[in-house]
Amino acid sequence: MYQDRILRRELIDKIVTADQAAALIKDQMVVGSSGFTKAGDSKAVLPALASRAQAKPLHITLLTGASLGHNTDAALTTSHVLSRRMPFQVDPVLRKSINAGEVMFIDHHLYETVEQLQNKHLPPVDIAVIEVTKIEEDGSLVPTTSVGNSAHFAALAQQVIVEVNLSMPLGLSGLHDIFLTGGYPERSIIPITSPSSRIGRTSIPVDPEKIVAIVITNIPDSPATVVPPDVKTTAIAEYLLDFFKNEVKQGRLKKSLLPLQAGIGKVANAVMSGFLKSDYENLTMYSEVLQDSTFELIDAGKMTYASASSITVSEEWYHRIMDNLNLYRDKVVLRPQNISNAPEVIRRMGVIGINTAIEFDIYGNVNSTHLSGTHMMNGIGGSGDFARNAFLSIFVTQAASKENAISHVVPMASHVDHTEHDVDILVTDQGLADLRGLAPRERAKVIIANCVHPDYRDELKSYYERACQRGGHTPHVLEEAFSWHSRLATTGSMKKSLTELSY
Amino acid sequence: MYQDRILRRELIDKIVTADQAAALIKDQMVVGSSGFTKAGDSKAVLPALASRAQAKPLHITLLTGASLGHNTDAALTTSHVLSRRMPFQVDPVLRKSINAGEVMFIDHHLYETVEQLQNKHLPPVDIAVIEVTKIEEDGSLVPTTSVGNSAHFAALAQQVIVEVNLSMPLGLSGLHDIFLTGGYPERSIIPITSPSSRIGRTSIPVDPEKIVAIVITNIPDSPATVVPPDVKTTAIAEYLLDFFKNEVKQGRLKKSLLPLQAGIGKVANAVMSGFLKSDYENLTMYSEVLQDSTFELIDAGKMTYASASSITVSEEWYHRIMDNLNLYRDKVVLRPQNISNAPEVIRRMGVIGINTAIEFDIYGNVNSTHLSGTHMMNGIGGSGDFARNAFLSIFVTQAASKENAISHVVPMASHVDHTEHDVDILVTDQGLADLRGLAPRERAKVIIANCVHPDYRDELKSYYERACQRGGHTPHVLEEAFSWHSRLATTGSMKKSLTELSY
Repeated sequence: MYQDRILRRELIDKIVTADQAAALIKDQMVVGSSGFTKAGDSKAVLPALASRAQAKPLHITLLTGASLGHNTDAALTTSHVLSRRMPFQVDPVLRKSINAGEVMFIDHHLYETVEQLQNKHLPPVDIAVIEVTKIEEDGSLVPTTSVGNSAHFAALAQQVIVEVNLSMPLGLSGLHDIFLTGGYPERSIIPITSPSSRIGRTSIPVDPEKIVAIVITNIPDSPATVVPPDVKTTAIAEYLLDFFKNEVKQGRLKKSLLPLQAGIGKVANAVMSGFLKSDYENLTMYSEVLQDSTFELIDAGKMTYASASSITVSEEWYHRIMDNLNLYRDKVVLRPQNISNAPEVIRRMGVIGINTAIEFDIYGNVNSTHLSGTHMMNGIGGSGDFARNAFLSIFVTQAASKENAISHVVPMASHVDHTEHDVDILVTDQGLADLRGLAPRERAKVIIANCVHPDYRDELKSYYERACQRGGHTPHVLEEAFSWHSRLATTGSMKKSLTELSY
Repeated sequence: MYQDRILRRELIDKIVTADQAAALIKDQMVVGSSGFTKAGDSKAVLPALASRAQAKPLHITLLTGASLGHNTDAALTTSHVLSRRMPFQVDPVLRKSINAGEVMFIDHHLYETVEQLQNKHLPPVDIAVIEVTKIEEDGSLVPTTSVGNSAHFAALAQQVIVEVNLSMPLGLSGLHDIFLTGGYPERSIIPITSPSSRIGRTSIPVDPEKIVAIVITNIPDSPATVVPPDVKTTAIAEYLLDFFKNEVKQGRLKKSLLPLQAGIGKVANAVMSGFLKSDYENLTMYSEVLQDSTFELIDAGKMTYASASSITVSEEWYHRIMDNLNLYRDKVVLRPQNISNAPEVIRRMGVIGINTAIEFDIYGNVNSTHLSGTHMMNGIGGSGDFARNAFLSIFVTQAASKENAISHVVPMASHVDHTEHDVDILVTDQGLADLRGLAPRERAKVIIANCVHPDYRDELKSYYERACQRGGHTPHVLEEAFSWHSRLATTGSMKKSLTELSY
């Protein structure tokens, strides 16, 4: 059995049930699991661990690549398994526990988790759980739809549990480029010079002695929920496409642009889809995630190569890709996330980064994680790895939401993930602010003129003008800086009430 | 004349007075000048420009490496020459104009100025003013005590004015390593793998046709003001030295540590001097500035190599170094600032970054630029280049100042330059907070327990506890977050008045 999946024969003896494998995870262990943007996650062992904990409580530190699918984080939260969780999540149940202070969540730049493990700034990984397509003769592991932190978890962990997922086509083999960064002081150059550079091997090296259990599964990834573009996302995409058109016209970019990075979400998808109808050519991507739009661009002959750490697509595209991997074999590559998000490589290639903001302020500081400055949404993810190092750092958000009760352009960002230094272009459905080469007071004028929803423009302008009367390089009225957020908390809207307006 | 300084003979004809050279700078021009941390700045042409503008107004955009010496920024400000200034300054007169909104100051990560010029995100440089030790036969320029952005300014500018400074010893020749990064998409790897790596040439290549004027000067650099350690800086240094001792003991660092970076200032000097009395060996430095302490460590045989973009030392050390350059020839190198501060290299080598904060908050967000969130002090400088990419990112500040009227540990940073992700260790004269691997609520407890001045501890604890009652991953009481700053503005102290305390 599993002749074509477990080529190192003696490892077949290690096959156990998910429950048996989960039993190897002990209380207080540090567990490193595969899984990045819901792709290539543990589909048997972590869920079994959640079930087991309902009967007999245990607590672990769980590290992943990024988000898990299949409501696994919810199940682990409900069973109180998670004492610490890093570096990213998107689960509503887990989010609630994080915001209640029950789960200690450590929000990382996605590049940095491995760095911190290697530097011993985090406790060592006891056990790794890695989903694979197959195990090679040398015991090395061929990942599935993501690489995430799996390669380094396997290298750093004392023990490795492998999930062999029979639903993953064997054709995934060859899609990955596994390069391990060494520890200090012997760290080497990462010799990637273009999205298509291959610098490593196609499987994750692991000492077969460390493989303590193998679980067979047959469950596909959770599909991405791809929301069709609406009026706002279309408007944002159009402003951005106009911007690129002008950059090409001005000679600052070529028709192939530069390698693109796009965060997950409907705006990114709308922008990428906009390229379909454009006259750009030979586009490339150096990103975290390959999404529906990536494959649409490849199919249309617009994109020649795409590099990322995972494939996260809608159910329709999932089957289409898995059934036709040969079409994409020489056009995509999946890398460890500390390579897909490496500052060194992002800088060297001049990536154009497009990421989503929760809110931004009149000076261009971006909050991409905390609702009203306090409540974690998902995490910073890779946005900072790209925004800091990008050729162009672009952030998008709707100008207002919830029937305009919330303005996403505010006097002062209630939490700062990306400082004004790391933000070149801001886009809302109201317009685009080009902040390049501008001082803070100039940035404020451009942002207020172009990005804010009309319902909030006058008040924001008034705030800025009153702030300027107090002076400073970055003028503020500190005691009013969060008044919009406070109003939202007390009245349900950032808008002034009629009573306030009458003063 | 100047036989040994201007080896390309026909250029001798270009010698003019400072006034004549300054006349080549026209209204509205973009000027790129040498000068980094007061070293190697223009000592004749920019001052002459300031004088000229008093008679006949003109306005320019001035780019430098970093700060200028000789009160040149003050003179230019007083003459209203500066309409735009980037990327850094330390001048009280200029600072006042920046905060009044008169000079548009663009505060850059010091790595990024060249990047933005190459990417055409800034207007092109019309004219460069470069101080040199000598001009080689091929017309290339040997810098003096700093490289800064000079190499790229010379490459990008239409015209180049050269200041040949006779006070600079010819022995400076050979000290520099000039490597120019190309534009996109042909950017190359920066192949530095250790502080002593030499990857370029010893002089700045320039098309001799572009050299439009040469001015002869004989003025040394402005000396650095080196303040002797006081009780607080000594305490901070001791906490930090204990920390390093323990890191070595725990096996996370070797006795050679990793390449060190230290911002300018008395704390950094105190820490570095502390290494003198330690049993560390084979220390190296990969920093922006070589300071007194660097040469002390080299002389003591503790430091084997130091790389930076400038030499900024006290008057005593200045003469000692200039008179004995042969002693340091194979132990120091000066690089362009987009190499000394390159994220790629800082990450690859695992630099330990020690920088100064103006204030930090209970979650470890650091403000290093804006007094009370609004008024620019100096600029972010290279702190972000290092903090983001460092093996260990350390920030230091005194716990309180002005007879304790100001606490430098606050509920919420009034301006964020470095987010909690980029801050590993915080040190005040009260103690050290090791934030590695901690979630925000855990960070708050450690910071409040270790770093805050006792006069503010109870109130900060109360703020944190009340914030936690509201919940969130990063709890805050938004309407109180800046109450300490507001109190400072109205009462001159962050402390509660007796009236307030009675409630």
